[in-house]
Amino acid sequence: MSLHFTRDEFAARQGRACAAIAEAGLDGLLCFRQESMYWLTGYDGFGYVFFQCLYIGADGRMMLLARSPDLRQAQLTSTVEDIRVWEDREGGDPAEELREILRGFGLAGKRLGVEYEAYGLTARNGKRLDAALDGFCRLEDASLLISRLRVVKSPAEIAYVRKAGELGDAAFHAAAAKIEPGAFEGTILSAMQGAVFEGGGDYSGNEFIIGSDDHALLCRYQTGRQNLGGNDQLTLEWAGVYRRYHAALMRTVRVGEPPDRQREMAKVAQDAVMAVEEALKPGDTFGEAFAAHARTLDAAGYQAHRLNACGYSLGTTFAPNWMDWPMLYRDNPVEVRPGMVIFVHIIIMDSDRRLAMCPGRTSLIGENGAEPLSKLALEFPVFA
Amino acid sequence: MSLHFTRDEFAARQGRACAAIAEAGLDGLLCFRQESMYWLTGYDGFGYVFFQCLYIGADGRMMLLARSPDLRQAQLTSTVEDIRVWEDREGGDPAEELREILRGFGLAGKRLGVEYEAYGLTARNGKRLDAALDGFCRLEDASLLISRLRVVKSPAEIAYVRKAGELGDAAFHAAAAKIEPGAFEGTILSAMQGAVFEGGGDYSGNEFIIGSDDHALLCRYQTGRQNLGGNDQLTLEWAGVYRRYHAALMRTVRVGEPPDRQREMAKVAQDAVMAVEEALKPGDTFGEAFAAHARTLDAAGYQAHRLNACGYSLGTTFAPNWMDWPMLYRDNPVEVRPGMVIFVHIIIMDSDRRLAMCPGRTSLIGENGAEPLSKLALEFPVFA
Repeated sequence: MSLHFTRDEFAARQGRACAAIAEAGLDGLLCFRQESMYWLTGYDGFGYVFFQCLYIGADGRMMLLARSPDLRQAQLTSTVEDIRVWEDREGGDPAEELREILRGFGLAGKRLGVEYEAYGLTARNGKRLDAALDGFCRLEDASLLISRLRVVKSPAEIAYVRKAGELGDAAFHAAAAKIEPGAFEGTILSAMQGAVFEGGGDYSGNEFIIGSDDHALLCRYQTGRQNLGGNDQLTLEWAGVYRRYHAALMRTVRVGEPPDRQREMAKVAQDAVMAVEEALKPGDTFGEAFAAHARTLDAAGYQAHRLNACGYSLGTTFAPNWMDWPMLYRDNPVEVRPGMVIFVHIIIMDSDRRLAMCPGRTSLIGENGAEPLSKLALEFPVFA
Repeated sequence: MSLHFTRDEFAARQGRACAAIAEAGLDGLLCFRQESMYWLTGYDGFGYVFFQCLYIGADGRMMLLARSPDLRQAQLTSTVEDIRVWEDREGGDPAEELREILRGFGLAGKRLGVEYEAYGLTARNGKRLDAALDGFCRLEDASLLISRLRVVKSPAEIAYVRKAGELGDAAFHAAAAKIEPGAFEGTILSAMQGAVFEGGGDYSGNEFIIGSDDHALLCRYQTGRQNLGGNDQLTLEWAGVYRRYHAALMRTVRVGEPPDRQREMAKVAQDAVMAVEEALKPGDTFGEAFAAHARTLDAAGYQAHRLNACGYSLGTTFAPNWMDWPMLYRDNPVEVRPGMVIFVHIIIMDSDRRLAMCPGRTSLIGENGAEPLSKLALEFPVFA
């Protein structure tokens, strides 16, 4: 067995989930989000690329339906004891197999929540699910039921989050040793990802982002690694990841002397990071923290260059996405609470001057507010 | 601009897509599969983690609807000229924005295909799409329309596939330099992933798989890196990836002297790889190649230890999955054709004896059959 939390901790989480399921007036929940399965049972793997469902009843009953390559995976990594396998074959329909299992659980005519917002449930499989369960039981969207529980971390989770923070810093130090005029982006990326793996960490929910020159203004990974110029900018977004817990970081760095404009952007962006972190006080809302970002940048004349979001919660999300619920955007009413882990990134892209400036770091929310998990300086890193 | 194919090649692909759309009796296609977008236009990024849609009409018209962080991404990496942005806000619905754009294109009452089988279209977003377009136009599932075109690679694509094959071999050589009694799995993983990045390659569609001891019997990545024992087994599945094209490989290796049973498993598995490759002749079916795998293993007494699939097509799939359509499973009627790229892996897991044996490699299909892209020996690698 490879459980990364105690059985007591999993039992406590399952108990909270059962209470939330009952409180929502549901008899059970069909989980399709891998992060829900990992949080509830430890089940870890990417079997969710095909139809896969974890059922948890308000009565605590659990059952996983997966493909044959995932049977041992579930046995070794999770607390689930009732594991069923469906077979790939022409004409097979795992949703119908699921219905018959649920029938055996006495769920005909009952009310079940479904995680419809899940990469593990494509729209096509969602239609199959609805068709198979039509007339059998009542379904309703409960995509955020587990996410609302997951968003506040336990002491055992926070220990992993802190370790993730250390790996994030280690990745930057490994990159810094390779950043110089003419350096190959692939060498820098290798160093960063290598530091995470060598520290016992994991793949992140999405690809690290790396781009120099014009590509420094992008905020997604894309294929095609380049060499840095003699005087160039490089935008990096990465995460330390430990036991699937993320601590993300972001920086735009310079090789050679930066233009004055970019130094000014760096100052404003750093002020904005601090303003958002200052606003992340228990009781305040995610919308208020976003407003602090907008106020700071707009007052400095950057309203045309900012994005509509400035960060999000982090947790154990799986590929293709490390962005967890909820997000720091306008008017988001979700309250900040102790035990949350929040990534703040300020993304300023000046397309006319082709300059990027994107500092960001992850904080743990305590009783008194945000505690940054990174020891890296927020100042603009310049490699002269 | 960062286009990885000529504009002529993209235009030719778009022309073939338009013809297939018209042939299917459709007026246009709503793409939600990132690999379709990449193949049609070069658009590269992970914006598909949120609602994102590429429209292509039977008349050749194209339009991308994405979020603000993806605007520059699409401008820099794709041939799409008409890019629209939707904003994150409470109560916003990009599916309704999409409908109004389609209305402007004169598509009211028309018939559109939809890629419902897409990680980029969660079941929840699929419901929103259906609700927004209900009564506006007729929709039908066309998830495989582009995949059926993508499955046969062009000469320019094959050049990238071959480069991916080289990176896959380089990753194994980098791992081999680190594999020894007591070695840390994280160090081995770092070496493999690093070889791909340093060679100019990309992240793979799913995580590399690494597991020793009992975890060698798993065929998914999971968190929790271990140290190898003094006499141990290690299962690795990885891919060279170049310009998003995958060439996957798989091996179970040994540190120390293997048990006789594992040597026997290696011999049988190697025979099975060769039998499947031999069956991958143009005109034969994917189902027949699977049958060659089943025949070989069953004749040797391994029917209880094999999986229900022995490989799949590879291409430019994005996270969370590098498995492309179609798969090598029982009775699959899809025909093998020249220009296909097919990964064959034989997975034998003997749970009672806790032994794994999983050789696999990727072949390019030519007029005369399968040409392995890897120069690595298929024999059981033993590090004494």
